Amino acid sequence: MALSSNTVRVALMPGDGIGTEVTEACIAVLEPLARRHGLGLGFDRLRAGAMAYRDTGSAMDEATFERARDADAILLGAMGWPGIRYPDGTEIAPQLDLRFRLGLYAGVRPIRALPGVPTALADPRAAEIDLVILRESTEGLFAARGRGEIIDDREARDTMVITRATTERLSDFAFNLARRRAARRGRKGRVTLVDKANVFTGFAFMRKVFHETAAKHADVEAAHHYIDAMALDLVRRPWDFDVLPTENMFGDILSDLGAGLIGGMGFAPSADIGDTHAVFQPSHGTAPDIAGKGLANPTAMLLSAAMMLDWLGERGAGQSWADASAELEAAVDAAFAEGLRTPDIGGTAGTAEVARRVADRI
Amino acid sequence: MALSSNTVRVALMPGDGIGTEVTEACIAVLEPLARRHGLGLGFDRLRAGAMAYRDTGSAMDEATFERARDADAILLGAMGWPGIRYPDGTEIAPQLDLRFRLGLYAGVRPIRALPGVPTALADPRAAEIDLVILRESTEGLFAARGRGEIIDDREARDTMVITRATTERLSDFAFNLARRRAARRGRKGRVTLVDKANVFTGFAFMRKVFHETAAKHADVEAAHHYIDAMALDLVRRPWDFDVLPTENMFGDILSDLGAGLIGGMGFAPSADIGDTHAVFQPSHGTAPDIAGKGLANPTAMLLSAAMMLDWLGERGAGQSWADASAELEAAVDAAFAEGLRTPDIGGTAGTAEVARRVADRI
Ligand SMILES: CC(C)[C@H](C(=O)O)[C@@H](O)C(=O)O
Ligand SMILES: CC(C)[C@H](C(=O)O)[C@@H](O)C(=O)O
Repeated sequence: MALSSNTVRVALMPGDGIGTEVTEACIAVLEPLARRHGLGLGFDRLRAGAMAYRDTGSAMDEATFERARDADAILLGAMGWPGIRYPDGTEIAPQLDLRFRLGLYAGVRPIRALPGVPTALADPRAAEIDLVILRESTEGLFAARGRGEIIDDREARDTMVITRATTERLSDFAFNLARRRAARRGRKGRVTLVDKANVFTGFAFMRKVFHETAAKHADVEAAHHYIDAMALDLVRRPWDFDVLPTENMFGDILSDLGAGLIGGMGFAPSADIGDTHAVFQPSHGTAPDIAGKGLANPTAMLLSAAMMLDWLGERGAGQSWADASAELEAAVDAAFAEGLRTPDIGGTAGTAEVARRVADRI
Repeated sequence: MALSSNTVRVALMPGDGIGTEVTEACIAVLEPLARRHGLGLGFDRLRAGAMAYRDTGSAMDEATFERARDADAILLGAMGWPGIRYPDGTEIAPQLDLRFRLGLYAGVRPIRALPGVPTALADPRAAEIDLVILRESTEGLFAARGRGEIIDDREARDTMVITRATTERLSDFAFNLARRRAARRGRKGRVTLVDKANVFTGFAFMRKVFHETAAKHADVEAAHHYIDAMALDLVRRPWDFDVLPTENMFGDILSDLGAGLIGGMGFAPSADIGDTHAVFQPSHGTAPDIAGKGLANPTAMLLSAAMMLDWLGERGAGQSWADASAELEAAVDAAFAEGLRTPDIGGTAGTAEVARRVADRI
């Protein structure tokens, strides 16, 4: 799928709970944005998630998967619901299936302090937080999903798998990302692998393969850091980091930690990117406590959509997509800089109001 | 080993780097404290760690291990050194061997904001942080230590093991700890298991066993939380949590995160406790960058020693040990409350000065 036209088809999966609400807000911003840039953005609405599972017995049926797979990009709200579970008790999370089935090894989770949004930290340098957790998303501990064993109700085992092939691809991705960021930000890029190589064979292996790959990217600095020290340093000096590739489970933890620093999950977009496909979705869940009330913060969804436009541009759909991405991100920043405050940060602006205020700046 | 006298023998392992410095500071405080309370505290100095490995080829020889095992308690500084590694590249960490060989399943890592020590968070409620990460320390992902496999330089595997027996003991420990804390703090205790039961068989099993055990402790509230959400909430509202039992790797990460909130590793004590033995040590490492300069903050070591005295009292050595523990903790608190500031929090008080200021209040 090399894109070459100004018309793309996006598989849209609103999902459950606030997933559907932030999706509507996002469409309300994307449509005028596309018009303004002369872009053809078609949406193919697909049903998947916990409610789909409850009603049909399938969280994402094969026909739906195929339509998503054949689209140019996949944009997802949020999926899952308390009390609706697979028979083995695990969560309805077809987004995990998409990551595995489409080979979306690069979980890109930017952590950036938006202008005007208070961070959790006392240090004023926190306003400069601008890093990316790069969560490997097809193996690591998650390779055990659906495969763990329980022996005699006495002992359970889950095996973490780290491969050379995926570590190489993830490392290349990290260095390429750091290089692009460096060009934008006008400073040298730095990639810091987060591992636990002092204790585990798999992480010592990951570190070795990472540094072998780093040799191909001499223009970007390569470093490594232990996961425990990184959890500490993300609290003490997050402004010092740039691109942080890491194992799947570690990335899940660090990306939530990072979101906590910059105002919470409502400000944390994400992209799961592979060599041929990509899924874009906010990092947050379906938030049953506020679902249906119009209070959900759609910022993470808007920023995820901006990542999608950027990715489409990079893949050959043309410069207008990159321009639209930059404009969307700038509009979100400007809205918060001028005082927009959502309920999750102590304000009153609901889902629709955020969409309106952002759309107004386009 | 049920204690019944006022004389105990402590195996003392200063270890490497600042480990030896904070150990000296600790002795300088413990000796007058013991005298004042009429306690017989004998130290058996033992050599173990990275330097021992470099000089003798063994990080902790069998004779040393046996003397430590036969002591009433083990007090440890810090061990490990960059560049000194086992042949497979992993870190010299005999403290991990002690945890496994002595069955020290309960890694108690208190995270408490000391009066006067600035926290990393902007919210003033952070001054109330007072929680305990209870890191399981004999299995989990660490069961793979020394056992991971690499297949054809292509793929590495490490297996996480969670057993019913250890989860039950850890859960009992958590509820007992919460009950004691509740009595001291005059409020109901709450134990929150941190897991990833929505994805992994092992964690679903752990959660099941935890709630079965909780049924025996109805006076304490039992809850569970996902590890990713906990990483977020430790940044957003750490003052809401009490006792947090979790898997070994997760506990390693969360305890460093927690230390970051309350001023850094210099303020994070720890105890590794089993049914018959216990090791007490600060959570920090050997800090090669400041080793030998007299700048290390010995607070975590002093608070670890206070945990040791408390544990000795609880195990039957008598009330005077508990009193000495409380006095040591109060002296540390008072010294910081009245303005003591170590270099790690922007002050100038070195290792010896902290010891002197704390000892002065005894
Ligand atoms: C819903 C859950 C299974 C998922 C994950 O752990 O990957 C989520 O936490 C995420 O970060 O995307
Ligand atoms: C030194 C290291 C192997 C150790 C661990 O991971 O257990 C340390 O980080 C700790 O927390 O005690």
